Amino acid sequence: MHVHGHAVDTRLNNIAIIGVGLIGSSIARAARLWDPSLVIKGHDASVEVRDVVRRLNLFDEVSGHAHEIVDGADLVIFCVPIGQIEAIAMSVAPAVGSETIVTDTASSKSAVSAILRKSMPKARLVPAHPVAGSEQSGPLAGSPDLFKGRWCILTPERNTEPSDVEAVSRFWEALGAKVDIMSAGQHDLVLAAISHVPHLFAFSAVAAVAELEKERGYPFLDFAAGGFRDFTRIAAANPHVWKDIFLSNKEAILEVSSIFRAVADRLQQAILGNDERAILEELITARAVRSQMFSNGASDE
Amino acid sequence: MHVHGHAVDTRLNNIAIIGVGLIGSSIARAARLWDPSLVIKGHDASVEVRDVVRRLNLFDEVSGHAHEIVDGADLVIFCVPIGQIEAIAMSVAPAVGSETIVTDTASSKSAVSAILRKSMPKARLVPAHPVAGSEQSGPLAGSPDLFKGRWCILTPERNTEPSDVEAVSRFWEALGAKVDIMSAGQHDLVLAAISHVPHLFAFSAVAAVAELEKERGYPFLDFAAGGFRDFTRIAAANPHVWKDIFLSNKEAILEVSSIFRAVADRLQQAILGNDERAILEELITARAVRSQMFSNGASDE
Repeated sequence: MHVHGHAVDTRLNNIAIIGVGLIGSSIARAARLWDPSLVIKGHDASVEVRDVVRRLNLFDEVSGHAHEIVDGADLVIFCVPIGQIEAIAMSVAPAVGSETIVTDTASSKSAVSAILRKSMPKARLVPAHPVAGSEQSGPLAGSPDLFKGRWCILTPERNTEPSDVEAVSRFWEALGAKVDIMSAGQHDLVLAAISHVPHLFAFSAVAAVAELEKERGYPFLDFAAGGFRDFTRIAAANPHVWKDIFLSNKEAILEVSSIFRAVADRLQQAILGNDERAILEELITARAVRSQMFSNGASDE
Repeated sequence: MHVHGHAVDTRLNNIAIIGVGLIGSSIARAARLWDPSLVIKGHDASVEVRDVVRRLNLFDEVSGHAHEIVDGADLVIFCVPIGQIEAIAMSVAPAVGSETIVTDTASSKSAVSAILRKSMPKARLVPAHPVAGSEQSGPLAGSPDLFKGRWCILTPERNTEPSDVEAVSRFWEALGAKVDIMSAGQHDLVLAAISHVPHLFAFSAVAAVAELEKERGYPFLDFAAGGFRDFTRIAAANPHVWKDIFLSNKEAILEVSSIFRAVADRLQQAILGNDERAILEELITARAVRSQMFSNGASDE
């Protein structure tokens, strides 16, 4: 990204990663490769997770107390599940200095930014969402390549210092991500459309077939082919993580969901009315999206 | 499959394949490997497709007139899109002898069986659906392995001769498929649940995001990640094939769709009401399906 203005010192020396599962440990791995001189400290509430990252030797210091690693950090990155952010943010707030930039990695931004802002009223906050992940979780599943070629969306507030946005941008670019900047509201609508509502429908479809199977006493799932297998893969995502995402992006999810339903209604009405032309029109529109995505340089991962 | 009763001669000598695209050409390839002495004839309305399969040397005879290859066949297999079945079935009916078994490969069975029955009132009909396919189409995409380890569902009528069912079963088993037998209505409900309605929702979701993108003038699709990419893959299926499937399995699709929507409504209500326990319950049910599928020996293809 490009920020016009005078040059600023955006050098980072000391990074605190709060929550060292898949995302947090991957940030540590990638940052270590980028700049071996960085001091990287990690916190996790789980003693097992702390033991794993100690064995992996990913951090200069690992602590069970978040405020210990935040003290003296240039950049604090929240990588814990959304439901745990508020309590930790409150507990570390006194240790967040005036030179410390605070960011996060949560999949919804308006609600999470509000929580961070409320817990740390004076923080230099640059909320972020690396659009990357894996079906796996935990520090053993992490990789320094997790963010390579992926988007990281920053959603600064109106009065955020451009130099803080630039520091966080450069950090994510150094980890291999492509950075884009938009409002939290826009982020939440985009993510609802391309991730949250598709997950909601996949969870619902898969749960519905499980119900049908029970009700009719017939092994529907034995015959599962292409389309439905993709749904079950999506619906195998972590229920606790997704409960938090659904609750923290409720409004945008309900807005997008009603648009999805309106299109599904239109398609069903066309089927009901034997309107071949209208059916074809919807299906051709949907098919065109994939070629559009790939002509825009997306990769099929 | 096992049919009890006296031994019957189910030997096939002369097979007519109507429509030699992905499915028809794959049947020819697999049947040829199974029994090199089989006479296999193919029909296609497209001169380009006929040229391709002639070059590939897949058939003993290739004709632009379906009735020519049906004459003298033991087994006639309809592999054309659903919308073309009626016209061809009417045209070949006079050539279908009393010793000829007629089968098909269509993805919906009640409506297609009714069309075949009406067009050929005296045919020895054993409707079938190999639950296999590919995103590609056409004879060049065919493979002798297309049906290996896949289900082929037979939906015989009440008065179908068991020996005819056995002949078609053995044929599909020889091509590598696992055979199951159920009523056409049951097939249509199962397929609606595990394929047709998931496709309907994926088409709708993808068309909805394309609409959103146009309306808001914002490149939603640039950020497409995991879940939505799977939807676009499903929605890249052939629009003409899927229009026919939707129209020919309308009733079961509408029934299953209303069940899917009811579950989605329940999940949305839980989100709206901040009911964490109810949300988790749905998501955990959905997640369990995948492990259930794999413990039943499904493979991840």
